[in-house]
Amino acid sequence: MFTASVLTLFPEAFPGPLGVSLIGTAQKKGLWALETVDIREFSRHKHASVDDTPAGGGAGMVLRPDVAAAAIDAVDASSDEERPRIYLTPRGRPFSQSRARELAAGPGVVVFCGRFEGLDERVIKTRQLEEISVGDAVLAGGEAAALCLIEACVRLIPGVLGDPASAEEESFEGDLLEYPQYTRPREWEGEEIPEVLLSGDHGRVAEWRREMAKKVTQERRPDLWERHIRRQGDNR
Amino acid sequence: MFTASVLTLFPEAFPGPLGVSLIGTAQKKGLWALETVDIREFSRHKHASVDDTPAGGGAGMVLRPDVAAAAIDAVDASSDEERPRIYLTPRGRPFSQSRARELAAGPGVVVFCGRFEGLDERVIKTRQLEEISVGDAVLAGGEAAALCLIEACVRLIPGVLGDPASAEEESFEGDLLEYPQYTRPREWEGEEIPEVLLSGDHGRVAEWRREMAKKVTQERRPDLWERHIRRQGDNR
Repeated sequence: MFTASVLTLFPEAFPGPLGVSLIGTAQKKGLWALETVDIREFSRHKHASVDDTPAGGGAGMVLRPDVAAAAIDAVDASSDEERPRIYLTPRGRPFSQSRARELAAGPGVVVFCGRFEGLDERVIKTRQLEEISVGDAVLAGGEAAALCLIEACVRLIPGVLGDPASAEEESFEGDLLEYPQYTRPREWEGEEIPEVLLSGDHGRVAEWRREMAKKVTQERRPDLWERHIRRQGDNR
Repeated sequence: MFTASVLTLFPEAFPGPLGVSLIGTAQKKGLWALETVDIREFSRHKHASVDDTPAGGGAGMVLRPDVAAAAIDAVDASSDEERPRIYLTPRGRPFSQSRARELAAGPGVVVFCGRFEGLDERVIKTRQLEEISVGDAVLAGGEAAALCLIEACVRLIPGVLGDPASAEEESFEGDLLEYPQYTRPREWEGEEIPEVLLSGDHGRVAEWRREMAKKVTQERRPDLWERHIRRQGDNR
């Protein structure tokens, strides 16, 4: 079973969104498991201290390597299978839908949530932590990013979402963003649902959606659009 | 005061990470405010239904425009100042540290959390929702993304973080990722802190950190590195 173990100084930040809706129900059904581990419990220092000043000077505090490694090693020791060890940090490689798919197909993840100015580099090296960033903004800690990463994985586990087709026709799959959606009422505040969507002509609907997906991707994500064009070329 | 109003079908997903550490303390101190609004309360349909099938067919359900707009309008009507209205969706433009800075300097945000296959396009248009994506992976809903967006803003509000210098010397500011950090003990598991950081020579420390920041950015984020080079050129 996919198990997410989260190492954090703030276990009370969880489960948050992981406890609601289909993701929360799936956990209760035993389709995946969430475990939080309090990093502070692995401190052997005075006042359960976990951080110290940065070598070389500078603002803020850095998570001590001995405390962080003790927490990681304890989780590893209690695991049946080896799982990818992820450290969430703005310095990481960008998270992606394809990495979410890979992780979702495996036994789970060990996620280390950074705080302060970061984690001592020697822990990242010796414990082979995969540094991942969920997006290009800096957070106060890794907890909110962990919620995103775990949710992105869990929703891909078979049986978690009601309808497996939903997961296939969505943004980033096939490099295109999703087309616009409409539902009832047909007219609302003087705005009509586009006629093609009411035509019943599946071919025209599919073509319209594809064109809209291309348009929105070109406008908003030139980076994805370039990749899309390149892959189209490769497939010829 | 910066006020974040979150429109969601799952208010119980909050505050999560927004309730802990300096961000949580700042809220108790009145430096910012968090309000959750249950979208379902604005349904006038049978069984408080909020969604319906997509026009044109396809998997999943779409959030109805009348329900979503009623919730947004109620929040607007109760606000003293007009705030940016953000809709979190993988179709959005990527969130960034510069957008976080802009938002943090304003009166707050109204954040609409999507669920299902998305929100009826007519609400996005008529209510002028700014579509934002926090990263390139698909979530089950906008709640975890909202936590990231709000946390990224709140930590930039003066007085929230202990040390204002921390926020300046960090990833994405100046287009470079952060240099590696080290702290005590000096030797740990046979790994030493790099000698330069213990030299007491501030010039050498600053130069080493700058070189390391360049190296890690080149390796992990060629996109940021290109932007960095381009701006350096512009400044000459």
